[in-house]
Amino acid sequence: MSRVKQPQNESRTMLTALLTPIEQELADVDRRLQAELRHPDPWIDQLAQHSFRIGGKRLRPALLLLSAQAVGKICDAHLTLATVAEMIHTATLVHDDVLDEATIRRHEKTINARWNNQTSVLLGDYLFTHAFYLASTLETTYGCRRIGRATNILCEGELRQTASSGNFWLEREQYLQIIDAKTAELCACCCQLGVHYAGGDQTMVRQMAAFGRNLGIAFQIADDLLDLEGEEQTAGKSLGTDLAKRKMTLPLILLRDQLPEADQTRLQTLLQEPDSSHTALLLDWLERTGALQQARHVAVQYSRNAAQNLDQLPESPAQAVLLELTRFVVNRSS
Amino acid sequence: MSRVKQPQNESRTMLTALLTPIEQELADVDRRLQAELRHPDPWIDQLAQHSFRIGGKRLRPALLLLSAQAVGKICDAHLTLATVAEMIHTATLVHDDVLDEATIRRHEKTINARWNNQTSVLLGDYLFTHAFYLASTLETTYGCRRIGRATNILCEGELRQTASSGNFWLEREQYLQIIDAKTAELCACCCQLGVHYAGGDQTMVRQMAAFGRNLGIAFQIADDLLDLEGEEQTAGKSLGTDLAKRKMTLPLILLRDQLPEADQTRLQTLLQEPDSSHTALLLDWLERTGALQQARHVAVQYSRNAAQNLDQLPESPAQAVLLELTRFVVNRSS
Repeated sequence: MSRVKQPQNESRTMLTALLTPIEQELADVDRRLQAELRHPDPWIDQLAQHSFRIGGKRLRPALLLLSAQAVGKICDAHLTLATVAEMIHTATLVHDDVLDEATIRRHEKTINARWNNQTSVLLGDYLFTHAFYLASTLETTYGCRRIGRATNILCEGELRQTASSGNFWLEREQYLQIIDAKTAELCACCCQLGVHYAGGDQTMVRQMAAFGRNLGIAFQIADDLLDLEGEEQTAGKSLGTDLAKRKMTLPLILLRDQLPEADQTRLQTLLQEPDSSHTALLLDWLERTGALQQARHVAVQYSRNAAQNLDQLPESPAQAVLLELTRFVVNRSS
Repeated sequence: MSRVKQPQNESRTMLTALLTPIEQELADVDRRLQAELRHPDPWIDQLAQHSFRIGGKRLRPALLLLSAQAVGKICDAHLTLATVAEMIHTATLVHDDVLDEATIRRHEKTINARWNNQTSVLLGDYLFTHAFYLASTLETTYGCRRIGRATNILCEGELRQTASSGNFWLEREQYLQIIDAKTAELCACCCQLGVHYAGGDQTMVRQMAAFGRNLGIAFQIADDLLDLEGEEQTAGKSLGTDLAKRKMTLPLILLRDQLPEADQTRLQTLLQEPDSSHTALLLDWLERTGALQQARHVAVQYSRNAAQNLDQLPESPAQAVLLELTRFVVNRSS
């Protein structure tokens, strides 16, 4: 499982460079996030600050802020909602690490590895509820409603994914529905909130939600590819967890569907006994048959659809970054 | 651990009889809860319906509706918020059962026992997020804000409790702070929402929040007593989990504080090696020293304070039931 290389964090550096036009606003969101997660109880404070460090790459706040800037101006509600979105994403990461038994994230120990599963479950709940409280400090219920709905769909996706674990015959369509719910929905929600709170019209809200959805699906397919073929040191997180949990992701589905029956049985047997010595064998098989390449192609297709969703946006630095993001999500190494 | 008796559910029957004045409204909340938890995906539907069956005894919805009726009229927002409160409580029960490794609740298998911990974590998240979404369908953010804050405090309490597990020297004051956060806060919130949405004034909102808080503390102390000395068949849930998890609850704190040093060491040793054969020994010790009786007395004291908080309410069937509830919470067997 351990595929060691020199520590790097190319993707984060790439992303930071890309996000220069909203650098200050993202720094503000980071400050808000950290301030919200301060707690007088030293134990809760320590946990919350750790979750801040292992949190996401701020993609969701970036989507929200860029969508706002692309159609109007970033206002205080955007900064609050970007903080909410990142806090919710962090909550899901904390719970995901329990489900995946992951030990490393962002080059740090996960909460479950450093403390235990119980602490992870409760910290995730703490982050979820804090995020919802924060959303409710806005003037209207719009933000709460959209965030509540998206997060609920996200959980549905995760539940469906758990149920499909070990299901060798998971259809490509089912896989796409799962990642749409568990990843793309929150991205779509962020873009929608960005446009709505910047005063964009309904057509633009819908268009940018479609952008977020396509981008999110491309991002998740790339993430699943990374879990198969990435380097742990580069990614800074535990990889190979999908194989260990017997999750059928797109490359495996594409491989299965092109194999004759006897080979399908061989593949099924290989996947039923997850073993790190099988990984190289499997990767070779995926490479030889072109299944990795095909999965990458599907991701690129979604990222191109996302790019097309931007067609009606006026040209602006924010629009240019959103366009760049469609390429970034499928070309990252972490 | 298994202290078998004929299945009974005296408390639920007692509570149902008590709640006759809001019988129809509670039935409405149950219908709403069940309808909200219906899902087109058969797997999610099955899980959500199971959580409905193992859910709470509807104490929180009852507090919300009775507080409303005691100062005015029950309206649609109350029914929505009562559904939200019960859904949040169910989410915490589902996660608690993972933390406590409990196998039985309301005479049914827990989610973690029937399926697994992963499913429990995700189902709890699903219920939390669904509840927040439902709260956001109200006209203003007041409900979301109060529910968000209370749920966040609840999680803080649970986190502090996890940290204090195995801490033999937990102070009585710390214990009370923990149960205030993890149990009493949501009860206080329900009473407050009941009064607010019935048009009660700020003084009444504060008074009824204090009632809910005192009642919640009394309820939790009684619950901790039940975990030590109750009968699993009567309670319909796994008991003895506090000892197994080395949680210092009030009877143990009171016992410890009255023992000479040598006996404190003996008690500490006994608690460090949780073993069902120690339970009888421990219960005998708690009984002989009067620690059980003293803990019961503290619970009764809080329930009397709750009763006093009702002094300014006009006499009504709802007020009479709230008064009865202060006695019920300390006299129940499940």
